[in-house]
Order: sequence, then structure tokens, then C-alpha cells
Amino acid sequence: MNAQLQPLLDETRKLSESVTRPIPGSRKIHVAGSRADLRVPMREIALADTPRIGLPPEPNAPFTVYDTSGPYTDPDRTIDLAVGLPPLRAAWIAERGDSEPLGGLSSDFGRAREADARLDAVRFPARRAPRRALAGANVTQMHYARRGIVTPEMEFVAIRENQRIEAIREAHLLRRHPGESFGAAIPQRITPEFVRDEVARGRAIIPANINHPELEPMIIGRNFLTKVNANIGNSAVSSGIAEEVEKLVWSLRWGADTVMDLSTGKHIHETREWIVRNSPAPIGTVPIYQALEKVNGQAEALTWEIFRDTLIEQAEQGVDYFTIHAGVLLRYVPLTAKRVTGIVSRGGSIMAKWCLAHHRENFLYTHFEEICEIMKAYDVAFSLGDGLRPGSIADANDAAQFGELETLGELTKIAWKHDVQTMIEGPGHVPMQLIKENMDKQLRECGEAPFYTLGPLTTDIAPGYDHITSAIGAAMIGWFGTAMLCYVTPKEHLGLPNREDVREGLMAYRIAAHAADLAKGHPAAQARDNALSKARFEFRWEDQFNLGLDPERARDYHDETMPKEAHKSAHFCSMCGPHFCSMKITQDVREYADAQGVAPDDALERGMAEKAAEFKAAGSQLYRVD
Amino acid sequence: MNAQLQPLLDETRKLSESVTRPIPGSRKIHVAGSRADLRVPMREIALADTPRIGLPPEPNAPFTVYDTSGPYTDPDRTIDLAVGLPPLRAAWIAERGDSEPLGGLSSDFGRAREADARLDAVRFPARRAPRRALAGANVTQMHYARRGIVTPEMEFVAIRENQRIEAIREAHLLRRHPGESFGAAIPQRITPEFVRDEVARGRAIIPANINHPELEPMIIGRNFLTKVNANIGNSAVSSGIAEEVEKLVWSLRWGADTVMDLSTGKHIHETREWIVRNSPAPIGTVPIYQALEKVNGQAEALTWEIFRDTLIEQAEQGVDYFTIHAGVLLRYVPLTAKRVTGIVSRGGSIMAKWCLAHHRENFLYTHFEEICEIMKAYDVAFSLGDGLRPGSIADANDAAQFGELETLGELTKIAWKHDVQTMIEGPGHVPMQLIKENMDKQLRECGEAPFYTLGPLTTDIAPGYDHITSAIGAAMIGWFGTAMLCYVTPKEHLGLPNREDVREGLMAYRIAAHAADLAKGHPAAQARDNALSKARFEFRWEDQFNLGLDPERARDYHDETMPKEAHKSAHFCSMCGPHFCSMKITQDVREYADAQGVAPDDALERGMAEKAAEFKAAGSQLYRVD
Repeated sequence: MNAQLQPLLDETRKLSESVTRPIPGSRKIHVAGSRADLRVPMREIALADTPRIGLPPEPNAPFTVYDTSGPYTDPDRTIDLAVGLPPLRAAWIAERGDSEPLGGLSSDFGRAREADARLDAVRFPARRAPRRALAGANVTQMHYARRGIVTPEMEFVAIRENQRIEAIREAHLLRRHPGESFGAAIPQRITPEFVRDEVARGRAIIPANINHPELEPMIIGRNFLTKVNANIGNSAVSSGIAEEVEKLVWSLRWGADTVMDLSTGKHIHETREWIVRNSPAPIGTVPIYQALEKVNGQAEALTWEIFRDTLIEQAEQGVDYFTIHAGVLLRYVPLTAKRVTGIVSRGGSIMAKWCLAHHRENFLYTHFEEICEIMKAYDVAFSLGDGLRPGSIADANDAAQFGELETLGELTKIAWKHDVQTMIEGPGHVPMQLIKENMDKQLRECGEAPFYTLGPLTTDIAPGYDHITSAIGAAMIGWFGTAMLCYVTPKEHLGLPNREDVREGLMAYRIAAHAADLAKGHPAAQARDNALSKARFEFRWEDQFNLGLDPERARDYHDETMPKEAHKSAHFCSMCGPHFCSMKITQDVREYADAQGVAPDDALERGMAEKAAEFKAAGSQLYRVD
Repeated sequence: MNAQLQPLLDETRKLSESVTRPIPGSRKIHVAGSRADLRVPMREIALADTPRIGLPPEPNAPFTVYDTSGPYTDPDRTIDLAVGLPPLRAAWIAERGDSEPLGGLSSDFGRAREADARLDAVRFPARRAPRRALAGANVTQMHYARRGIVTPEMEFVAIRENQRIEAIREAHLLRRHPGESFGAAIPQRITPEFVRDEVARGRAIIPANINHPELEPMIIGRNFLTKVNANIGNSAVSSGIAEEVEKLVWSLRWGADTVMDLSTGKHIHETREWIVRNSPAPIGTVPIYQALEKVNGQAEALTWEIFRDTLIEQAEQGVDYFTIHAGVLLRYVPLTAKRVTGIVSRGGSIMAKWCLAHHRENFLYTHFEEICEIMKAYDVAFSLGDGLRPGSIADANDAAQFGELETLGELTKIAWKHDVQTMIEGPGHVPMQLIKENMDKQLRECGEAPFYTLGPLTTDIAPGYDHITSAIGAAMIGWFGTAMLCYVTPKEHLGLPNREDVREGLMAYRIAAHAADLAKGHPAAQARDNALSKARFEFRWEDQFNLGLDPERARDYHDETMPKEAHKSAHFCSMCGPHFCSMKITQDVREYADAQGVAPDDALERGMAEKAAEFKAAGSQLYRVD
């Protein structure tokens, strides 16, 4: 953000209707947990009855889906951005008795900003005191998990992950292909104890900074639903505060499970406060970006002290995970010199420049244990950055990338020694035949810590369509075991995503994540496909739209060819017209089969098969060639 | 088409500039073959020089790519739709001396249409006499191949497949990951003899009806570049002749290798004539659609005679391949009754209805050898239809689908007995973990005859985005061995694709096809990624756009954030702004490394590595946990 910074005026404290209107055909519900203040939000999609010939219509139970949209799609809630979301975890955090509210901000930078009256216009108004662990305490979910404690956060995610599987029509659950999980171990039902165990083993994380009580907890791990991250953030070229908060809410509406604020510019501290206070989803950042701002963009001027102050500044705002490029070691830097695209990670290139300028080891690596001390005082999770990820197909799986991954494995074990929750970032640009090697190596080197990958893009040749080049790789690596997929928008490599780009990117990634869940054999995944396909086959158009990932687009597209409302209950498709619909013909086949006594029950199926076998034995000889 | 049929007025005999304008930054070239009339079209992309510090700029050789766009993007050619394209294969066909021009049309239907003066307004004006094989002759490319004859068509495709690999910068070819081809056998260089051998074995087809001399030959087979088909065609709901021809040209512009005309309606015969006469790409059809029109949509009224007359009618127009649903056997039909989505193939449901109505075996199966006789008299290739393909994740890989596939294997062997070129159609909706089983079974049952798949869609839950759900499956099955991918547009399941939908669908599928070629290890595939990534890294923005699959969109997207012309040579990305670009930083790293003597040559790399090893031996112990 620069000189054009826009303060939030009164009229912009409420979001536009476009990002908060109810999602068609559905309503917000809450599933109660073991305590009154534990209510897990979900979205329930109402379905129409199935018409039956000569019988009363058959009702279809409503279908419940995972809901990332937060209070914004809840018509019972009043949103005021300048107040922020209610701190639903505040009591849970306070009850644990291992943290305390501080008298003021601990970071020099935070204090300086607070004291600067010129920032009043853009400052989030409703500040609360930051919390920090008591001296010697460790407030991470991993620490609790390892001590056998099931936190409300763990119970929350267990309920959330189950998606009310018990309410799903039995037929939808019975029609399920066996998955191929490549060693994942997804239970039929997620219990709070299972969540605790996975977090304790480091195989899953619940990013949940104690300074982000507004959070609706979620979990990232290979034995849970595959998650999606969206990046937002202004850059020197564009954006203001109101726009960034709208982008946040818009991303959540389209299914972002976490959101990274990648802002660069002069007011990122203030923007971040608005974002965290209004986010029901974990917020991630790359603190080195802000640290670099503080030294006017001169990488070589970075110091541990400046970086440390930045970590504390952001931890006290409530950032839930930090990307830290501690694996960019001095010895790996020359390995990138002959690459086609060198170092493409911003954080990676900053650290590489620092290393070379000083001919010293990366200070994020040498101070890693001190970073862990900060992380565990607030429960900020590590997202160990892949600063040397390949930026082109040519550079995939090279010595620099894999060297760094080995170092990230080493750092994971150090973080775990401190009970700090950790995930690992992954590529990048990787052709399909090299994707699995990435996943296998990550699982091996990092002890199954969650993998969090950008794509990967499976080819370099489609600028303008990299949401698609990368959705292919994302679906595959999600299937192989990646826990969270970082979205890519159509503007990747070309420009800053606008709203429609964010929607396109998220849809591509929700598809990839769901395709991965299906392929892994997640117990509830196929039920939604089954429910939608049943609606499709029965010409329940509205249900088909509403069960889809984007009901609004599905309806818009149908309207383009068949705009009349009557067509929404038409027994034919717009593709084929009223006299030539294959689904209509199939229904005729069923009715005909019924009438002929060729009913679709097993006995008759066998009878037909026998008859057919006879036919084959006799006549079909004529058509066989040996 | 219905009452709104629009004749081609004089002003619409030329296509709109939007479908014929030159593709940015490139020009049409022709590579000469062994005879003067054998000139293979390609598209050459001009590239800017690479600036170098303290050295003269380094020139970048132009990059040649496969070109499906036909004469439409050739500024030296005048297009008149009412004349059609020049018959470049006419001499090749005539020289073989095994076919003859007929005195008139052989089909009853064709003759009746010809005699109907009411159709004059919409009839393609420049008719030529149809050709047919001499009595007892077989004019298929497979027949020639098996007799050891290398036809001009085979030489044409050999040159075309090589994409002027000899002109590619050596560095781009050297940077190449080994592929995983799952048993494909792609040579480093395609020779006409290799083409002949693959066609003779049935492992590839060159769809090339002798009545389609306008064709620029192309090949479909697992040991060649992965191809993409686009479907066009009006339905009862929409479209006219001019619109269909524009759709054809538009599809070719965006990379369709073949085009299927799936029209239904009253004037499909006339529309098809316009399409074939103006198509440089093979045209496929589903003749049963038209046969059904002839019996007013009553599937049970279909007869072998009507169908046979339709095959001849279309073969004499020059259709290059026919989808024939001969594998929908009576005994398989009841296997679909309990499916979630029954039979979703139009052709499949028509044949199923016919089978049940008569309780007799599918007449396409019982008359299959007679169909072969027609195919070989014109060289129409089979595309054996998967009438029982799954229309939902739930129905994937079931007994009906795989039973039909086994029958298609049986029919492939019969077709090969007649030297008729054959490919096999495949699904449909298939979750990722079940895709490979489809490919493996197809290769086994059908003796490596080319597989031609629709997607597959890897989930059902994203209506409006099925180009993406299916591009994921298409990339994977292409990698595993599918020879041609049938595109899916965003309107799938919802409506008729408009122009932008066709473009979106083709781009998604060009991506899938290229990702597959990369993963298989196609010798020239990665060179384009390398060239584009080099341009990207060197901030040659125009080259990045022009080397991409859609230069126009890439430029438009860049313009949205950075509209100024000067930004097209800016040494920073729009994402990060001028002071914060990772690529810029990487260039600084290289320069710094050079200045410090840490040059990126092998000796110095080793030196750095040793130094780093020392460092690790000493200091990094501190950060290791055992």
C-alpha cells in the first residue's frame, strides 16, 4: 500500500452484498460440541423430492458440507469490520491458565506504530491487549496433544471434519470406490482423540495463535480433508485496506481454508490487523517481506534483531503461521546458478542475497531455536518455506531443491523438540512424472509433517491458465499425501489477481482437493458426488446447481442456454434439446425394462446375463476373430 | 438446425477477423517434403535477443510449434468458404489408382437432398464428385502400411510430428527430464517408416477419407504427440451454418487436432458439407444421430438399412472417422439399470433402447463386418464408441463399462482383419485412483489401438468448471497412454458452449496434452517449456506471451495490472513491483557470485560445495537433532 491508502469510512465498515449474500439453496447450521461455547458451523443444502412414477415423491435429506465462509454468510449475524469477529476461543485460551494478557505490545515496531498519530485514520479501532505464554510455558496445540490433552480446538476440528457423515443418506455412503491412500490412514470417523494423536505425532497441525481468538479452528494433515490456501495482499502497485478485507471474505466464500497475507508496502502492519480481526480462518504471513521493508528493500541490511522484532510484532497481532525460509543455506545457493529460472521464491532470493553478501550462513537457520521459542509463546506454526523451489519444469527436483528439503527435515525435528507445530512448503513447477518423488521424499525427510504445496504447475507453457496447469499437479500431489494446496490464479506470472481470478483459482483448487480426497478414499467425499449425480440424473436442476462448488455459476451457465424458470425443472438437457436427451432415453430404458419384467433386481440381471451368454455362445461366434 | 437456418450470404463467406487474425509474434511456415506438393505447415515464433551485461546481446533462434490452424492464419491465402480449401491431397489419392470418382452420390439420402431445390439456398455450392475404392480395393492408410507403402500422408505426419526439432536451440533439448512412458516407445526422431510401422500395427491411425482431400494429415497414437478433439455442432436449440463454420475455424485456432460435428437437426447434411469442405483437420461424426433424425427420433424404428445409407452418405462427404456404438450389447444393458446415472452416452442410450425394444442384438454389432466394408472403401476410421461409459464417479469402472470395452477389443480385431483404422473411445467420469485401470485394460483388450477419451472428469461436484475437473483426468490418462483427448468445456452438463467456452475448453486440453507429452518424455516437448521459462527469467515479456498457448490472453492479463507498453520490457514483475522482484534479486545473486569469483562453473561449484561441507561439519552440528 502506498500514498493512496484508503481509510475505512463508515459506509465501508459493512461488506458489499456480493461477498456476504447467502450461498444459494443452503443455510448456516451449527453442530454442538461438548460445551455450550463449542458450536461448529456447517452449511446445509436443502434438496427437492425425487418424483416417482405411480408412487409418492421420495424425499431427499438435506446435505451438509464443510463451511469455510465464517459468520459472513450467517444472516443472523451483524458484521462490523471495525469491531471484528467475536473472540469465540477467548475463554478456551484463558481457561488453560498458561498465558496472560500483556500490558502492551512487546515489539519495538508495534509500539512505534501505536504511538504514531498519523496512522490513526487507518488503524483498526477495537484493539485488545496481546497475550503471551507465561514464562516457561508452551501454549502450542502440539504441546497439549503430547501431554494427552484434548483441547476444544481439537474437538472442534473433529466435528468439523466429519461433515455430519451420520446424516448422509446411506445409499450415498454405500456407493464408494476403495481409495488408494499411499500410506495415509484416514479413519471412518474422526474423533477428538484421533485429532490429538495426529497433532502429537506432528502429522497434522491446528494453526491457532492465542492472539487470534476469532478463529474457527481447522486442521491440516494428510489424514484429514485436503485443504486449500488463498493468497491475498496488496503490493506497491495496488490495493487498499477495504479492498484487502473484501478479498479475505471473498476467498473464504469460495472455500479458502487458510489465507496468506502477502502484502508488501508501507502500511502492512495496519492492514494485517484488520485482516486478522475479521478472519475466521488461520492467517499466514511471510515475515521476511516486512522485515525487508524495514531496511528499505536492502536484503544485505537485514539482521536477526529486525527479523525477531517482526516475528513478535506479527505474533502479537495473531498471525497463525509464518513462512520461514530457514532452509536456504549458503552451500545451496551456487547450486541455483545454472538453473533456467534461478531462485523464484521472493523469500528465498532475499535470503540467498543475504547469505552471499555476508558469506555467512542464513540467520534464520542459525537462530532457528530462538525462533522456536517465539513460536511456542504464541502458538504460531511454522510453514518452512521452500526458498529454492523450482520456477520452471527444467529446474524441478534438482540438487538445490532437494538439498533444501533435507534441511527442512532437519529443522522439522528441531521444531518438534520444542513442540512447535510445523508444515513444509513444496514446489512449484514439476512435470507429472516427477511429482510423486517430491511427496515421497518430503514424507521421508520430514517425518510426515504436513506438506503444503504451490500447485505444482505441470507445464510452463500456459501463462494465463496456470490455475489449470497447477490444478493438475495439485490434485495429484494431494492424492499422494499433500495436506494443503496453495492456490494459483489465472494471473500467475502476469499480474495481480482481481476478484474473478481469486474465484477461478479457488474453484480450481477446491476441485483438486476434492479429487484428491476421492482418490485417497476419504469416507465422506464420494457422498457429495453421488448426491449431485443423482440430482443430475433426476433432472433436479436446482439441486445439481446447489450441490456444486459454485451454485451461482452453474445456474448462470444454464440460464445462458435455457433462461426460462420452467427449464429448471425440464426433463431434458440444454445440450440435446427436448427430443434427444440421453438421460431421458435411459429413463425410458428403465421403464421398458420394468414393463418387460427385465427389472433391475439381481435375479433378473442374472437371467438376462444367462440369456446373453447363450446368445454369445451361439451367434457371436460369427464376429470373433482369433 | 431448425427454421432459423441462415444461408451464407456473400458478406459472410469470409470469416470474421477475430478467427483469422495472425497469432501474435508468429508466422506461418512450410517445411518441404520429398515432393513439391508436400508442404507441412508450422508456426514459427520470433524471439527477441537476450541482453547481456558487458557483452553484445545474444540472439534467440525462432521457435517452431505444431500448427493446427490451417490456411486460416496464413495471410498469403484468400479464404472463401463457398469455395472451400484447396484439395492438397487430391493428386496423392488419384495417383494410387485404387479409387475412382463416381458418377453421382451412392446414398439414397444424399441423392434426395441433392434433388431438393428448397435446399439450394443452404447448399455448399462447389460440389465435386465423390470417390470410392475400385471394386475389391482397400484404400485405407492401414492397408498401404501393411503392404509396406509409405504414403505422402505418412511422410507429412512424420515431418509434422518432429516440429523442426533440428532447429531447436541445443540447450533447450539438453535440459530434459527422463519421461515415464508406461510402455510407449517414442523415438527421438519420427521417420516416415516409423509412421508406417505404427499404422500397420494398428497402434496409430491417420484419419484421412479419400473424399476429404483438403485435409492436412495428422496422426493419433500413443507414440506421437497427444492430440485434442473439439466438439462442435448445432442442436435443436441453437445455431446456423455460418456459426458452425466459424466454430470450426475458431477451434482450430486454439489447437483442436480433430473436430467432431455432433449436429442434430434438420439440415445436418448440408451443414456437414460446409464443414468438411472448409476443414484442414479430420472431421468425425456419430452417424447414429443422423439416422435417428431420419426416423423422427424413434430409436426402435432404426434399421440397418437406414444406418448403412447414412454411413455411405457421410463417407462420400469426406467424414474421416465415425463413432460407432457397436459394443452396446443386449446383455450389457441390464447391467446399467442400477447405476446412479444409467446410460449417459446419446449413442449408447439409442442403441440400448433399440436392443430392448426388439430384444435383439445391436445391429451395429451384427453388421460389423459390413460396416468394415464401407469404411475401407473410403478410408473412414472407426472410433468405437463407449456407449456405456460412466456418467458419474459412482458408475466408473463397472461391469457394464468394462464389458463393453472387452467387446470393443473383439471388434478392433475384426476391423484390423479388414485393415480398417480403429481407435477406441473411453470414459467419462472416473476418480483418479481408477484411471490407470482404464488405460491398462484398454491397451490389453484392444491391442494398443489408440485410446480416445472424454476427460475423464475426476469429480462430479463442479458443474461450471468441468473443463478443469476433466483436464486433471485427461492429463493423467494422456500420460498413461491415451492418444487423443476429447475436450470438455465449462458448459458441460449445463448448456451449449459459446466461443469463449470453446477457447477455455481447448486451452485446458492443450495443457493436459502437453503435460502428458512432458511426462511421457516426448523428445521435443520440454524444449518449449525451457524456451518460455528462459524468456520469463530474462523479462522478455513479449516472448513469454508468444511462446504460451494463448498469447492474447497472457498479454491481456499483463495489461490489466501493467498497461504501459514500457512495462513489456520492464525488469520486474507486476506481482511484486519494481523494488521487490525475486527474479531481479536472483540476477543480482548471479552478478554478485560472478564478482566474488563464485562463478557458476563446475570447478567453482565444487569449491563452494566443499566450503559448505566444511561449514556443515563444524557449525551445523549445533542444529542437528538425532
